[in-house]
Amino acid sequence: MTELRVAVLGVGLIGAQHVDRIHRRIKGARVAVVNDYVAEKAEQLAAGIDGCRAVSDPLDAIADPEVDAVVLATPGPTHEKQLLTCLEHGKPVLCEKPLTTDVETSLEVVKREAELGRRLIQVGFMRRFDDEYAALRAMIEAGELGEPLVMHCAHRNPAVPQSFTSEMVVRDSLVHEIDVARFLFGEEVTSIQMVKPAANPSAPDGLADPQIAILRTAGGKHVDVELFVTTGIAYEVRTEVVGEKGSAMIGLDVNLIRKSAPGSWGGAVTPSFKERFGRAFDTEIQRWVDAVQQGSATGNYTDGPGAWDGYAATAVCEAGVESLHSGLPVQVALADRTTIEGA
Amino acid sequence: MTELRVAVLGVGLIGAQHVDRIHRRIKGARVAVVNDYVAEKAEQLAAGIDGCRAVSDPLDAIADPEVDAVVLATPGPTHEKQLLTCLEHGKPVLCEKPLTTDVETSLEVVKREAELGRRLIQVGFMRRFDDEYAALRAMIEAGELGEPLVMHCAHRNPAVPQSFTSEMVVRDSLVHEIDVARFLFGEEVTSIQMVKPAANPSAPDGLADPQIAILRTAGGKHVDVELFVTTGIAYEVRTEVVGEKGSAMIGLDVNLIRKSAPGSWGGAVTPSFKERFGRAFDTEIQRWVDAVQQGSATGNYTDGPGAWDGYAATAVCEAGVESLHSGLPVQVALADRTTIEGA
Amino acid sequence: MTELRVAVLGVGLIGAQHVDRIHRRIKGARVAVVNDYVAEKAEQLAAGIDGCRAVSDPLDAIADPEVDAVVLATPGPTHEKQLLTCLEHGKPVLCEKPLTTDVETSLEVVKREAELGRRLIQVGFMRRFDDEYAALRAMIEAGELGEPLVMHCAHRNPAVPQSFTSEMVVRDSLVHEIDVARFLFGEEVTSIQMVKPAANPSAPDGLADPQIAILRTAGGKHVDVELFVTTGIAYEVRTEVVGEKGSAMIGLDVNLIRKSAPGSWGGAVTPSFKERFGRAFDTEIQRWVDAVQQGSATGNYTDGPGAWDGYAATAVCEAGVESLHSGLPVQVALADRTTIEGA
Amino acid sequence: MTELRVAVLGVGLIGAQHVDRIHRRIKGARVAVVNDYVAEKAEQLAAGIDGCRAVSDPLDAIADPEVDAVVLATPGPTHEKQLLTCLEHGKPVLCEKPLTTDVETSLEVVKREAELGRRLIQVGFMRRFDDEYAALRAMIEAGELGEPLVMHCAHRNPAVPQSFTSEMVVRDSLVHEIDVARFLFGEEVTSIQMVKPAANPSAPDGLADPQIAILRTAGGKHVDVELFVTTGIAYEVRTEVVGEKGSAMIGLDVNLIRKSAPGSWGGAVTPSFKERFGRAFDTEIQRWVDAVQQGSATGNYTDGPGAWDGYAATAVCEAGVESLHSGLPVQVALADRTTIEGA
Repeated sequence: MTELRVAVLGVGLIGAQHVDRIHRRIKGARVAVVNDYVAEKAEQLAAGIDGCRAVSDPLDAIADPEVDAVVLATPGPTHEKQLLTCLEHGKPVLCEKPLTTDVETSLEVVKREAELGRRLIQVGFMRRFDDEYAALRAMIEAGELGEPLVMHCAHRNPAVPQSFTSEMVVRDSLVHEIDVARFLFGEEVTSIQMVKPAANPSAPDGLADPQIAILRTAGGKHVDVELFVTTGIAYEVRTEVVGEKGSAMIGLDVNLIRKSAPGSWGGAVTPSFKERFGRAFDTEIQRWVDAVQQGSATGNYTDGPGAWDGYAATAVCEAGVESLHSGLPVQVALADRTTIEGA
Repeated sequence: MTELRVAVLGVGLIGAQHVDRIHRRIKGARVAVVNDYVAEKAEQLAAGIDGCRAVSDPLDAIADPEVDAVVLATPGPTHEKQLLTCLEHGKPVLCEKPLTTDVETSLEVVKREAELGRRLIQVGFMRRFDDEYAALRAMIEAGELGEPLVMHCAHRNPAVPQSFTSEMVVRDSLVHEIDVARFLFGEEVTSIQMVKPAANPSAPDGLADPQIAILRTAGGKHVDVELFVTTGIAYEVRTEVVGEKGSAMIGLDVNLIRKSAPGSWGGAVTPSFKERFGRAFDTEIQRWVDAVQQGSATGNYTDGPGAWDGYAATAVCEAGVESLHSGLPVQVALADRTTIEGA
Repeated sequence: MTELRVAVLGVGLIGAQHVDRIHRRIKGARVAVVNDYVAEKAEQLAAGIDGCRAVSDPLDAIADPEVDAVVLATPGPTHEKQLLTCLEHGKPVLCEKPLTTDVETSLEVVKREAELGRRLIQVGFMRRFDDEYAALRAMIEAGELGEPLVMHCAHRNPAVPQSFTSEMVVRDSLVHEIDVARFLFGEEVTSIQMVKPAANPSAPDGLADPQIAILRTAGGKHVDVELFVTTGIAYEVRTEVVGEKGSAMIGLDVNLIRKSAPGSWGGAVTPSFKERFGRAFDTEIQRWVDAVQQGSATGNYTDGPGAWDGYAATAVCEAGVESLHSGLPVQVALADRTTIEGA
Repeated sequence: MTELRVAVLGVGLIGAQHVDRIHRRIKGARVAVVNDYVAEKAEQLAAGIDGCRAVSDPLDAIADPEVDAVVLATPGPTHEKQLLTCLEHGKPVLCEKPLTTDVETSLEVVKREAELGRRLIQVGFMRRFDDEYAALRAMIEAGELGEPLVMHCAHRNPAVPQSFTSEMVVRDSLVHEIDVARFLFGEEVTSIQMVKPAANPSAPDGLADPQIAILRTAGGKHVDVELFVTTGIAYEVRTEVVGEKGSAMIGLDVNLIRKSAPGSWGGAVTPSFKERFGRAFDTEIQRWVDAVQQGSATGNYTDGPGAWDGYAATAVCEAGVESLHSGLPVQVALADRTTIEGA
């Protein structure tokens, strides 16, 4: 097995973590090319890695014959073009969410991949690779909870940049629970309603925070999500599934228990998504590399959520943003998957 | 301090527990009179308690000069008349919920008590006397959570009788969370929406179960409640308050931890409300008895939620039932409390 | 049922709590007499309770024909004489530990009660009435853990008075775990070894703290106890039983869970024995009162640990103190129970 | 950075896991050579890995110029010779415990490595690489617990092979807690006493199970360990450190919480050491590979416990076995580390 030569496009926060990850921990792959619109950043990174070059144009990097696969960590608005270029060159690509920034282009990407007949696109919903989410899904699939009926989620951040907007809560935070709901329930989301309670007095002016999302799936299952991005506490992600035969909850953060202050006991809450999902990212990338290595035999170059999952999430987010403004439930109408994938 | 002579009206499940409680554990009170529309049940109970008589007419029992205070555990539709009789005779009364079965009569009771200028009525929202709820409220009042913003509740029963209806989920189960929300947030509920997900396949035909209630308070705080009365598991009541400076959760049932089956650890979930709230009932009745003993000095014969709290809960439940049928949010319009209580 | 007239002898910390408890919460009993070697304290307490008198001599209080039963919360060295006086007058007595301060007099008390043929003495090991300990014992008795094999205990106090000595750790703290071991395992303790690790730098000079006790029962079961009385944290009592078919632990203090400091989650640890075992004391006294009320019919005036249990605990403590000085295991040789109780 | 060519000697349970780990997940290393006394097993493994050969003599494998580093997973009695051969050829080696099977040869290995002036040996105490143990140690080093005073451990296995002996409990199970105690307290163990309670009726005849180990460190700290290898439940490893300013516990197994049986809640306990410490093994090997890669620059080819740690553990185990037979405390006399390492 020769090492997969990976191009990492976009080396901001997430992209730089992926470079480091592939360079130090991922077996069977190496970072061959890095790219960023801030050219110096890419060059600096490349200089620290044997056999790694900085390339100034992301589309050139994709087309490069010495690149076997691509990780997209570029800004969302550039995804469409980059994904289509990957498809054109038959390059497997792991694309950080969103797939693209609107429903139409997302659907276009889905269709183009379907026409190729090869599954080249994976979307970076890393929670699917987290041990706890995987265990919860396994429990559901094993029938331990019977038919799942309801899902309660909390998604809390200690703080966000001043530039964070109410819409970004939907597009960047809620998008993960949308994928979790689809992943755990195996059903599409058919409607979404955003509720805006009185805002946290400590939140920046104009930011609707907390927000509550109320989803309904094709099978009538209910999902509610508390989104609260200025808690001041820590990064907290909790999911509870309530089913016909039982319920199960992950994310309680009960681990090392200490008693080291007068009158109290407790433990540490994970400070950020990096600590909470760092291992899930490792697993995601390792399994993606393994899948790509075996892709030419199977035509399936992904070990996780594909273009359709990215499209569906975008569609629900778009409806969520509409509901954020109207306060009313908004229906989500997806294209007919069978028609497209059967093409 | 002479012993309070209490008349317990209605000696079904709850009433009989109250008789036993007062007879065996409550200091400063004794069961002087019992009444039930099944006369034999009352007579049988009375025979087992020294100095206790069965009285066949509940209004006679209230009027009886040898009765100092009344516990109402009769069916809801009889409450209005019995409460008004208590007011008429100046008898302190602990009334199991509901105060009355509709908003108008509830309001009438509130007004009549206000006219008397004495607080004679306490409503049996026993959760206010539960250690965990009391601790949660103390934490909020101490400002540990900052401004409270959101409340998540789960209220689950293992099973209900075949005769249980979707409306009873609102009136008999949700009513407790309505009072908890008012108690913890110190605000009235101003709207309610009931969501009906796909029903539990194991629920009786025609029963909407689970249901989700979405409440909003006067201050814009959000409350959601999962109501699920056919879980097959146990009696579970969980409440989480999310505030400006932190969150807190009660009801996780983590107590005695055992590892006694291959591969698993865990503990027991409380089987029914009796075990979960038995002590809260004891505390409620003991403190009510103490309050009644001191009532003649203060004009306040109650140590807990009063007639207004019963009225407000009834109003929200009625709006909840309306939403159960329409699926839409329903506004709750309460009378002006200041006008009435200032009367 | 007439109210039991109780004399409370010794109204220091525990005694005063018992007076308050009986006065306010215990059904079927009233405080008729109080006594203390500080006469003013007793008189002050008596003045606040209708029908209660202060009596200056504890033996007079016991003999008083208007006293039906006695609670002993006097200093240990006075117990022998007071207990024998109770036996002489046939008065049921709840005696705070220790039964007496040495093995010989404890055994003498056991014998004198046995000669009377009535069980008049209960010793105040209140943990037996705590819900968690009761649940643990029920679990063992139901066979859920199979044959119990090992018990691990921690017994921690935030602080002790400067006058607290290494021997008091054995006699006043460890004594509870000795009774718990006998209660849960249903076997006598046959040897004890005290281990003194390097002392807590924050402990007062001369106090061996922490200490580790290693017990062995007649059936070869192992019990270890960490005793640590200057933790600075809280009152922590934890017990784990490991058996043939599983293990179970109580005392983890996981109840109301809050996240209200940056980066941390947790809850409150019980500050003192009063909060931790307050309810157990209530239950203990209520059940003792109920048992005494029915004692004339059965000859058994106790609902808990009796004189033998007090004697056995004293014998193990005495051996523990010996081991504290020698560092070696010390055998515990008890009298033959069958001979005495068959007398 | 060229890939480290690793020889894995001994491909039984652990060795085969290491082969798989290095082959699939460890960055910067590949399995170049495998060896086992069952030659077919090694050949079969080698056949599945590109560029991997089976070598029939372990000493030849060590000497092989195309081998850069060695993993020893061979039986303990062969370790001495293999380690000395590694030292002779200057090959970095990760040696599964025990270092050697007796104190004298362990000390000999320590001395030979010290004479070389390079740290070539790492011992496979993988718990040091476990997140929870690492967090506990970090907490101690940060002073959060003040001076550590006492450590309580439980080490439980669901079952052991029929051939498992009482001595193996000391040498193969307890050895991990011995290293944990040295790791967390930073002090040598100076005495050990083994206690044998009545045996588990379900344990094989002749196996002393459970056993209790009581250790004391140079600084007078107390450590107790419950060893119980036939629990029938799961693999449980729990460690609590009690210090001057607080206590902390790891290993409670509270993660995914489910309620899926009537009346109960709970979660899964890790079935075996593979699941519990699989990630610690990954981390251990990855960090060892990284350390070896940088070793020629520093002379330090290890990222963890070294030969001295292996020697010290062997010495305590040997004393433990002596105590197992005598029941008495046994002193542990180590060589003078400064003299040896200063050599």
